[in-house]
Amino acid sequence: MKRVLYGQSGGPSAVINASAYGVITEVLKHDDLEVLVMRHGIEGFLEEEFFKVEDYIDNLELLPHTPSSAFGSCRYKLKSYKEDDTDLKRLVSLFKKYEIRYFLYNGGNDSMDTCVKVQEYCDYIGYEINVIGIPKTVDNDLPHTDHTPGFGSAAKYIINTIMQIKLDSSVYKKGKVTIVEIMGRHAGWLTASSSVAGTEGLGPDLIYLPESVFDTEDFLKEVDRIYSKNQNCLICVSEGIKDKDHNFIGMMDSKEDAFGHKQLGGVCNTLGRMIEEKLGYKYRAIELSTVQRSASFMRSKTDVLEAIEVGRVAVRSLLQNETLKMVTIERISNEPYQVQYKLYDVTKIANYEKVIPPYMIDEENHQMTVEFLNYIFPLIDGGYKQVYSKGTQDFFKAKK
Amino acid sequence: MKRVLYGQSGGPSAVINASAYGVITEVLKHDDLEVLVMRHGIEGFLEEEFFKVEDYIDNLELLPHTPSSAFGSCRYKLKSYKEDDTDLKRLVSLFKKYEIRYFLYNGGNDSMDTCVKVQEYCDYIGYEINVIGIPKTVDNDLPHTDHTPGFGSAAKYIINTIMQIKLDSSVYKKGKVTIVEIMGRHAGWLTASSSVAGTEGLGPDLIYLPESVFDTEDFLKEVDRIYSKNQNCLICVSEGIKDKDHNFIGMMDSKEDAFGHKQLGGVCNTLGRMIEEKLGYKYRAIELSTVQRSASFMRSKTDVLEAIEVGRVAVRSLLQNETLKMVTIERISNEPYQVQYKLYDVTKIANYEKVIPPYMIDEENHQMTVEFLNYIFPLIDGGYKQVYSKGTQDFFKAKK
Repeated sequence: MKRVLYGQSGGPSAVINASAYGVITEVLKHDDLEVLVMRHGIEGFLEEEFFKVEDYIDNLELLPHTPSSAFGSCRYKLKSYKEDDTDLKRLVSLFKKYEIRYFLYNGGNDSMDTCVKVQEYCDYIGYEINVIGIPKTVDNDLPHTDHTPGFGSAAKYIINTIMQIKLDSSVYKKGKVTIVEIMGRHAGWLTASSSVAGTEGLGPDLIYLPESVFDTEDFLKEVDRIYSKNQNCLICVSEGIKDKDHNFIGMMDSKEDAFGHKQLGGVCNTLGRMIEEKLGYKYRAIELSTVQRSASFMRSKTDVLEAIEVGRVAVRSLLQNETLKMVTIERISNEPYQVQYKLYDVTKIANYEKVIPPYMIDEENHQMTVEFLNYIFPLIDGGYKQVYSKGTQDFFKAKK
Repeated sequence: MKRVLYGQSGGPSAVINASAYGVITEVLKHDDLEVLVMRHGIEGFLEEEFFKVEDYIDNLELLPHTPSSAFGSCRYKLKSYKEDDTDLKRLVSLFKKYEIRYFLYNGGNDSMDTCVKVQEYCDYIGYEINVIGIPKTVDNDLPHTDHTPGFGSAAKYIINTIMQIKLDSSVYKKGKVTIVEIMGRHAGWLTASSSVAGTEGLGPDLIYLPESVFDTEDFLKEVDRIYSKNQNCLICVSEGIKDKDHNFIGMMDSKEDAFGHKQLGGVCNTLGRMIEEKLGYKYRAIELSTVQRSASFMRSKTDVLEAIEVGRVAVRSLLQNETLKMVTIERISNEPYQVQYKLYDVTKIANYEKVIPPYMIDEENHQMTVEFLNYIFPLIDGGYKQVYSKGTQDFFKAKK
């Protein structure tokens, strides 16, 4: 029996469980293959927390319908063995104990870093292992892949939420300035997606991304111009917008997470107070918060199906003796939308962030270009049926 | 030709346009009846802003699918004629000019107050008019009706959002205290609805309502108890919770709106900071904001159909020469769920608020009782198909 170890890592998404479903169902096709699932990614596995599918899951078909990380996640930074090999030593001792030769890790940039660290150490000590990364991040900031599972569904939720906020905020004769804060530390893909609402006449008046320098004076001038005209103004802003000196506008404190990332938050309130003070307009600050990454009301069918597929491709790649790769999605045609799945050197993905290219940004008007819209439309397309009973969604539950 | 004047007032909801649809389609059944729709309620009408349906609407069938107030709303307090009859004089001069003998106003407590003021003045000067109120409020706080259109859909959104927040906030080994702030100034119906998520094992650990006195010390003790045990704690709290001296916990400033209501906001942050300071736990504050009242992702079928029906009943009541009444919903059976539509003296509804009765509150455990669950289940039941094209919802649009 060959054992695949699978783990979820980083922030939850609406479709990471669809990737887990892809992995599990692909493994089930092979009689000589078995999957062990980490609890809380490597953090739990280091404490020997994991399970066999048959011991934990009895409603597998609900897994792709369930948002968030069903098996727990972690933000756990493995040190390079050259610096401190404690964790990696422990990890490999567990690989040996449970005869694990296949390692699948499902996450974003930091999770791909874990893949690299595991492979480096195993190569160094001569433990034979195949390591494949499965992409997941709502931020869409993984390089060398057209897009990332999780992004399409989060974007779709954001777009439709913005449309609703626009309708809601424009009912009175005299409106407010509404500032919506959207996730995205260095890459503004999710915030940019709000521009799709504009194609329905319900989009933001202004979009601010981390890709462009945030200029306070220009911002206030733009808000003033729009509010004076419409008695209303809707702004979508990335949590990670920065001034010309690379200072985060929304920095509330200087705490850092395990990966050294600054913890952001509150930029919508910062901008709101600025507007009230300098322009005298009323404001409403709306932070979309974690709901945007785990919303399953209206996921993109493209996204769910691709998330399942990257899980399947990862298992197949292991069996083809591939290693130190991440599964990528290549768009081979936009109309009709067609993709193929490939593999890419994970060392060139880990810790790199893909930001929005300039040709997709209409900097002057604080909007996105038609190239961005053409890029995103297929990614938010189609519905993936959500099952409800008695008013609540049916989600996967672990066996007792 | 008899003219019905219809207006939307107060905060938007996910189904107020369904009531408009009920009014318009009912009027269309009668050759001798015509509806004029106010822009921005009476505020716009006082400036002679209104339209005929055929001049404004060309995709009527999308109206019940569209959240928020499609014709604009207002928070405009009419003065009693005894105090100042300027507005009422102007109003009646417009009634006369456009031969309006039927007045329909769609809203909550304050909008019912408008109905009363209009009738009082018309009676005083001897202008013959029929006035019927159409109930709408996500807050569910109108008395003499089992519930109010708008509540079921907002509650359903909140319940499923809480389930997603619970999944999202429990993925790491060590969690946070998550505080979700939900609308409700004096009545906690929407916050209470979060308890339904608990029937799926994904509910809040603690629920705090304006109906109960908020005790800071007890609150911190409860949070500490739960977090110590689970390394996680999910709290749902009404924006309007108050201490024993009736002071709002989340009071940020002392601004008041046109009706003298204190503008609330920020209780989730107030409680979060308290938890961090006194208990040393990390927190995440989530304000569901206006999205909760205007979300159309997953409305309740019961709610949409009832919203349409109260609009229809209102028109029929006018034709039966009823006046100074509000349409109410009476539940005649819970299983199977059956209601009948009635009328109730609007003077006994205006400016009164219906809070949650004590038997629905499990005060000791900061949860709701089974009586509350039985009350709410039918109100969130069934799905009302939302139409999407290219990833975005299809909404009603006004004619150019």
